[in-house]
Amino acid sequence: MELNEIYAPIQEDLDQVRDTLRSISNTDFPWLSEQLGHVVQGIGKGIRPALTLLAGKFYEYDLTYLLPMAVSVELMHTSTLVHDDAIDKALTRRGQSTINSIWGDEIAILMGDYLFAKAGEFVADTQTPRAVKLFSETLATISSGEIHQFRGAFNIDQKLEDYFQRIYGKTASLFALSTQSGAILSRAPEEVITVMKDYGDNLGIAFQIVDDILDFTSTEEAMGKPVGSDLVQGTLTLPAMLLIESHPGDNPVKKLFETRDRKYVDTAIDMVVNSSIIDDCYRIAKEYCDTACRKLAFLPENNSRQALGELAEYVIKQGK
Amino acid sequence: MELNEIYAPIQEDLDQVRDTLRSISNTDFPWLSEQLGHVVQGIGKGIRPALTLLAGKFYEYDLTYLLPMAVSVELMHTSTLVHDDAIDKALTRRGQSTINSIWGDEIAILMGDYLFAKAGEFVADTQTPRAVKLFSETLATISSGEIHQFRGAFNIDQKLEDYFQRIYGKTASLFALSTQSGAILSRAPEEVITVMKDYGDNLGIAFQIVDDILDFTSTEEAMGKPVGSDLVQGTLTLPAMLLIESHPGDNPVKKLFETRDRKYVDTAIDMVVNSSIIDDCYRIAKEYCDTACRKLAFLPENNSRQALGELAEYVIKQGK
Repeated sequence: MELNEIYAPIQEDLDQVRDTLRSISNTDFPWLSEQLGHVVQGIGKGIRPALTLLAGKFYEYDLTYLLPMAVSVELMHTSTLVHDDAIDKALTRRGQSTINSIWGDEIAILMGDYLFAKAGEFVADTQTPRAVKLFSETLATISSGEIHQFRGAFNIDQKLEDYFQRIYGKTASLFALSTQSGAILSRAPEEVITVMKDYGDNLGIAFQIVDDILDFTSTEEAMGKPVGSDLVQGTLTLPAMLLIESHPGDNPVKKLFETRDRKYVDTAIDMVVNSSIIDDCYRIAKEYCDTACRKLAFLPENNSRQALGELAEYVIKQGK
Repeated sequence: MELNEIYAPIQEDLDQVRDTLRSISNTDFPWLSEQLGHVVQGIGKGIRPALTLLAGKFYEYDLTYLLPMAVSVELMHTSTLVHDDAIDKALTRRGQSTINSIWGDEIAILMGDYLFAKAGEFVADTQTPRAVKLFSETLATISSGEIHQFRGAFNIDQKLEDYFQRIYGKTASLFALSTQSGAILSRAPEEVITVMKDYGDNLGIAFQIVDDILDFTSTEEAMGKPVGSDLVQGTLTLPAMLLIESHPGDNPVKKLFETRDRKYVDTAIDMVVNSSIIDDCYRIAKEYCDTACRKLAFLPENNSRQALGELAEYVIKQGK
């Protein structure tokens, strides 16, 4: 099933989210508009704003609050990517040149800050202090998670537990903000808000595992950035950890981290792809998706619940 | 008059602000706590949180709202400094090593983001969407102002108007947020909120002019960072602009910007210090302070109004 089919119940509103995101590049300063235009042009599949809208469909669906929230989660996501790319010295993202590669790290830092600020303006428009608080807490979780990841780079001695904590911080927390805020802003009962948080947490973890798989199995063309980037950055992801687990003595990840010689990236990718590791990772991702879907049973039945289930399936089919 | 005398009407509450700021360094991660401890240890004179508290003293002074707002403005200020230092590759700030110089630019980017997030959490605690919106708009103004400054670096063709717009963005906007939010959170009438904004705008501009003067007249010991930093960064401030105006042909600023040879920094400083430029700058700063003080006449008379007037005097006496 394609994303546009899954998005059917909210397609028009999601288009409005995209229009609003694009309108951010209208400023009084031509060069700022140019840079912002570059950023918002590269906006992705819109999974996070779609989650907010879908999660808002069970009680009082009011775009006055849901639209700015949906814009806000996508902007927060975009701003963290702009900073991440500066930190990783990444050259491409979503198939286009990164801000840091075109205008330098300084502009990337400031542009990320500007996008945070814009995200903050939109979340303020929800007029809902609880949503603002959750938004800020999520940003704190994401940035402390990134600090965690940066400090753990090229450290081979990490536990699976560290990995899951890390991807919760960098990805699942924002998925959970997206769904939970949709529930809050549509005045859902507390237990539904909790269900939405659990769904978002689990879907986010599955999404990141699949993203980490694709860094081994995909192509630069399909991903819009070079494969093997995580290993090059010294980031241990699930496939790499399972490779280390199955080859506890000598293995290319260990050698890569010791020597920083990029030839070991290719060896690691070969070994992972020609083993059961990818299947194992997809199985683990699927378990998280299944958990996410089971949570949906606690929601009223409607086309949005259906879509959230389909979205979970879509996530684990990526790249398969 | 010393700051602690001026702060008398709010001293106890300002101590609480400082305690809360220090408590931010208590996290579950020892290294994050270490870095945060370093940041909050260097917190400055507290002018911004003092402004919030003083501005909140005219109607319903309620610390439930004013305390988190005061913490929030100081955190926003701190986070922008952490990013600025990374951008400027500054080695010292307030007499201690910068985050980027100790832990690298990557940690500085993420630490700044974390501090923004914490600032956002505190502003959410005001439970006041208008304060949140103003907070986010101010962050957007500050970061677009910084982009403006960065792009204008080493450009000799700037007008005084550009300078005032720039220092409004980088400094006065946050002073205005500090005062205006104090008024909003104490349920002041609209006209008082406007008065507080005007006072904050004007005081902030005066404060930045004096800061720019000190970059020429002060010592590294007194400032906690090297003198002449602005010129080295290619930032045209008021004293430099008046020097160019008085020497439209050849002047050391022009030569510095053309050659990037640091010997011209000393020449520029000498010429500025041995001319009427410093006096002229102080006179302009004083005009802004006077404007700020005239606004105070529209406020009810109390010890806080007195303090705001004294603060304006304190600002222009800095370094004199």
